[in-house]
Amino acid sequence: MARIVQKFGGTSVADIERIKNAAQLAKMEYDAGNQVVVVVSAMAGTTNQLVDYVNQIDREFDPEEYDVVVSTGEQSNAGLMALAIQNLGIKSRSWLGWQIPIQTDAIHEKARIVNVNTEELEKCLSDGEIAVVPGFQGISADNRITTLGRGGSDLTAVALAGVLKAERCDIFTDVDGIYTTDPRIVGKAQKLDKITYEEMLEMASLGSKVLQTRSVELAMNYNVKMQVRSSFENTPGTFVVSEDEIMEQQVVSGISQSKDEAKITLLKVADRPGIAAAIFGPLADAEINVDMIVQNVSEDGKTTDLTFTVGEVDLEKAVNVLKKNKSDIGIGEIIPDSDVVKISVVGVGMRSHAGVAQKMFMTLAEKGINIKVISTSEIRVSVLVAEEYGELAIRALHTAYGLDAD
Amino acid sequence: MARIVQKFGGTSVADIERIKNAAQLAKMEYDAGNQVVVVVSAMAGTTNQLVDYVNQIDREFDPEEYDVVVSTGEQSNAGLMALAIQNLGIKSRSWLGWQIPIQTDAIHEKARIVNVNTEELEKCLSDGEIAVVPGFQGISADNRITTLGRGGSDLTAVALAGVLKAERCDIFTDVDGIYTTDPRIVGKAQKLDKITYEEMLEMASLGSKVLQTRSVELAMNYNVKMQVRSSFENTPGTFVVSEDEIMEQQVVSGISQSKDEAKITLLKVADRPGIAAAIFGPLADAEINVDMIVQNVSEDGKTTDLTFTVGEVDLEKAVNVLKKNKSDIGIGEIIPDSDVVKISVVGVGMRSHAGVAQKMFMTLAEKGINIKVISTSEIRVSVLVAEEYGELAIRALHTAYGLDAD
Repeated sequence: MARIVQKFGGTSVADIERIKNAAQLAKMEYDAGNQVVVVVSAMAGTTNQLVDYVNQIDREFDPEEYDVVVSTGEQSNAGLMALAIQNLGIKSRSWLGWQIPIQTDAIHEKARIVNVNTEELEKCLSDGEIAVVPGFQGISADNRITTLGRGGSDLTAVALAGVLKAERCDIFTDVDGIYTTDPRIVGKAQKLDKITYEEMLEMASLGSKVLQTRSVELAMNYNVKMQVRSSFENTPGTFVVSEDEIMEQQVVSGISQSKDEAKITLLKVADRPGIAAAIFGPLADAEINVDMIVQNVSEDGKTTDLTFTVGEVDLEKAVNVLKKNKSDIGIGEIIPDSDVVKISVVGVGMRSHAGVAQKMFMTLAEKGINIKVISTSEIRVSVLVAEEYGELAIRALHTAYGLDAD
Repeated sequence: MARIVQKFGGTSVADIERIKNAAQLAKMEYDAGNQVVVVVSAMAGTTNQLVDYVNQIDREFDPEEYDVVVSTGEQSNAGLMALAIQNLGIKSRSWLGWQIPIQTDAIHEKARIVNVNTEELEKCLSDGEIAVVPGFQGISADNRITTLGRGGSDLTAVALAGVLKAERCDIFTDVDGIYTTDPRIVGKAQKLDKITYEEMLEMASLGSKVLQTRSVELAMNYNVKMQVRSSFENTPGTFVVSEDEIMEQQVVSGISQSKDEAKITLLKVADRPGIAAAIFGPLADAEINVDMIVQNVSEDGKTTDLTFTVGEVDLEKAVNVLKKNKSDIGIGEIIPDSDVVKISVVGVGMRSHAGVAQKMFMTLAEKGINIKVISTSEIRVSVLVAEEYGELAIRALHTAYGLDAD
């Protein structure tokens, strides 16, 4: 007998028919002799509606009350899922965040799980019940409802799988797995059987929105085996596992893109010690995350050019901050550019294989695509290119790294 | 400084604009130096939607999970109301049923309040905050969410007003008070300034759906002064108070109707001791409430006729029960009739005034309206008439008892 945590995303529980379908998937695992915990999201669209209500009242809302409002979508779906499972003849009940409890810190809107009490859930499971838990919610030490940030239901599922020592955490969604790249762009994209936590983390943080980044981190820390799979097709999905569970590691596992990037180039910046701190300090104070940074070699020894990227949403704010400090810092000109896309090749295999970056640069050069900025991590090479070349770049790279399906 | 409980019904908090409007009404009381507790219903339509979801899964649902689902509408509105009040510059927070806690028994779907802990609310009010409480919900000794039955938010408001010793419990709704009769039927119906608990109870149980019956009982027991008023017009509403607060008591305060009645006549029933028990026992076992009962004088000493009313929803079930026992009991014929309406005149003044019933019978006779069944209580006379004569009867009686506006 194994223990399985199943998490159903918003599209998998978007209406009563789909909730019933998800209940069948829980029953299949239960009938196979497993103990089952089901984590549910809100119906697709519900959370957005609730967030919109809050914003209609006040854009600078009290996050404590925000959490009271937005946590209700998961709560009602938890009750409905328990009813749907009961309707299949299996004992089931819902366990709300405060009933378990799932203790979090008091950082409302994006709380972190501090502790999960397993006593009640263990009892429930050994009584042969399926426990249904609303995702996304917890309770603070002040006895107030907290939420874990958008996509937080993944986090709930992984945390439960971790503390309950589940054999597997299945993430049911509307896609049937993780692909080598976006299949809407590259027809020959292939579903991966397995991907490592590290690769998944890079993919997730680069804009592949299948899994929430924090949930992958947590799964890696607790060594929780995740499976991303479709609730609409009965096929195996993609397993997210630790590196040692993958025998034949591809050099490059996937190619991802992020369009939510913007580039800022600063011309004729005074080339003096402390200039980077003078520029990026005010941006950090304004809570703007800076990603890729490139500083040119100073030609005249007096001024230099500097290019960096920020989130597209922060572009205007960043430019305003820079303008305010322009003369103080010594910046000649500020050139913003939001028509850019970041393309990344990701793979743990590149740790032991040289030439991955070189192949990327060559491939893009052959297609006449100009690279604006480059950044790398241990298992990733990213380049910033003009948005209009994005899809061409992805297709070319997908072929170059041998990822195309036969 | 007084303490006021304000309850806003579903139409008064049906969207964000109305929630903001309700927050203004809370601010008015707060600015006048009062301590304010706000109780909110779900947005109009939300609870019906949630109940429909539950019924789509299974009509014989687990009431414990039903409560988890249907309590969410009030929860999200409580958060939104707290935000709307904060937006007006007043400190406010939501207090969910399990946070206060409002302890109830474990009869899910229609739980009764056992105890309300006032400690946290008292602290909140003395800190100058407006406490916002979702109506309709409580928590059982098993730590599970319970709901108080449809219309239960009134009950929450009255219970809080009782334990917090509030000066007044204002019930904001979409009508501006209690009328002598339904103004849609009688144009000259008048809004009452005051009505007694007893009269309100009779009116409520007779189909005037402005206040939930149990909330009026509770208000009477705790001597909570209620005011039914409109959230859309700034006019005084109708106070529901104890009898000794009304100086000049009208003989008849109001006329109400209930169309949800059905009549069953049994012909040629064996006239023997225990016959009533033999008929009504099986109906009681089937949980069918019987209201008015009339037994004719037996003419031949062997058989009699018997007429009684049941709720229209129970008519088919009642007839089936009777048919099954027809020969055992000794019933000649069963004649159901759902085209009936119960008209009632209500007034505590009739305790000390004779002739109220006589005036009713005379008035109806003058209009040629046949009375099918009569029943009375200490402060009420009710008659059953054919549905097509209902409105005519109400208009005639309204005039006869001197209730028409000038």
